[in-house]
Amino acid sequence: MTKDVWIGNDRLSAQLAFLVEIDKLKSVLRKTYLIDKSRLENSAEHSWHVALWSMLMLEHANDPSLDLHRVVRMLLLHDLVEIDAGDTFAYDTQGYEDKEERENAAAARLFGLLPDDQREEWITLWREFEDGETAEAKYASALDRLQPIIHNHYTGGVSWRKNGIVRSQVLKRLDPVKQVSETLWAFTKEILQKSIDQGILLDDPKEGEG
Amino acid sequence: MTKDVWIGNDRLSAQLAFLVEIDKLKSVLRKTYLIDKSRLENSAEHSWHVALWSMLMLEHANDPSLDLHRVVRMLLLHDLVEIDAGDTFAYDTQGYEDKEERENAAAARLFGLLPDDQREEWITLWREFEDGETAEAKYASALDRLQPIIHNHYTGGVSWRKNGIVRSQVLKRLDPVKQVSETLWAFTKEILQKSIDQGILLDDPKEGEG
Repeated sequence: MTKDVWIGNDRLSAQLAFLVEIDKLKSVLRKTYLIDKSRLENSAEHSWHVALWSMLMLEHANDPSLDLHRVVRMLLLHDLVEIDAGDTFAYDTQGYEDKEERENAAAARLFGLLPDDQREEWITLWREFEDGETAEAKYASALDRLQPIIHNHYTGGVSWRKNGIVRSQVLKRLDPVKQVSETLWAFTKEILQKSIDQGILLDDPKEGEG
Repeated sequence: MTKDVWIGNDRLSAQLAFLVEIDKLKSVLRKTYLIDKSRLENSAEHSWHVALWSMLMLEHANDPSLDLHRVVRMLLLHDLVEIDAGDTFAYDTQGYEDKEERENAAAARLFGLLPDDQREEWITLWREFEDGETAEAKYASALDRLQPIIHNHYTGGVSWRKNGIVRSQVLKRLDPVKQVSETLWAFTKEILQKSIDQGILLDDPKEGEG
């Protein structure tokens, strides 16, 4: 169904087949709930949300001169590999063992639907996000990880509690935030403390208690 | 719940309240189905999808030198007003009568949650999209209108048939495509003809038949 050739234009036909294929990201469910708790969030709407986060939060980056256009594009495509590889829960150490392999295969198949030059461009952007070396990738990653914290906080920690997550796990996961923004890092520590005070996030066992 | 003051930082607190509020766009349903027909599409994931469309289709614009960064940002925020105003169906002439009024009020409330400078910036982008005068706004609007055509075609015209839509209504709606891209306009005409040939879109009654 996705192999139609349109107006005899191979590039357009390939691009449309890709745009039809990626509709599937709307059916990949994350572990995070919508803030009204009505259902789990999907990866397409999550990507939309974090792209808007990146537009609003740039002033809080330690380096606000970074290239927002690249950040937004990275965030919009960073989860596409989940169409084949599924969403790997942030705290699933077993799932992370073969995450890279699964996602590389997914990137090859999905971006492989595109014309060569666009395939290269999109894989490069996706790889930059995954490698997390550039200022843009770190900033994008920080927001990708911070957004579900807000959802957890405002939904009474439903996903944290369901999965028995403790503060140190969240802090470790949020290390990119520490790297890119003093302001957002201060916020991160405050929201986690408030969540613990409200009993919606578990603190780590104190030494001798464990 | 959205009025918390975080780390004593008013700007950050306002930005976070806004980012929590716009989560509601994930629950605004459109008339378009996902391509697998499993459910209606929501406006947040639609915004994500058309932003990716704009990244891939730029080469087909008659003026491919237009500012893609502005296009992407416009598409990401263009539907936010639907949180208050709802999604007005493209072919609902009655709904369109007070659409502008409803959406202006929504923009004032929603963007009003942001710090002054960002409120101005986002309202300006939203207004540019709505006015449809600039090359960027026209290109963005063309993709916003073309994406549901693909969904209708690949779902057997379920939304067209349910709502008794005929070819001339779709063509009129797609006028921005004609304005921005010869290639996409040729595609538009082809996909509509193919849909009619397959019996999933009604043709207009011929003169004397009506």
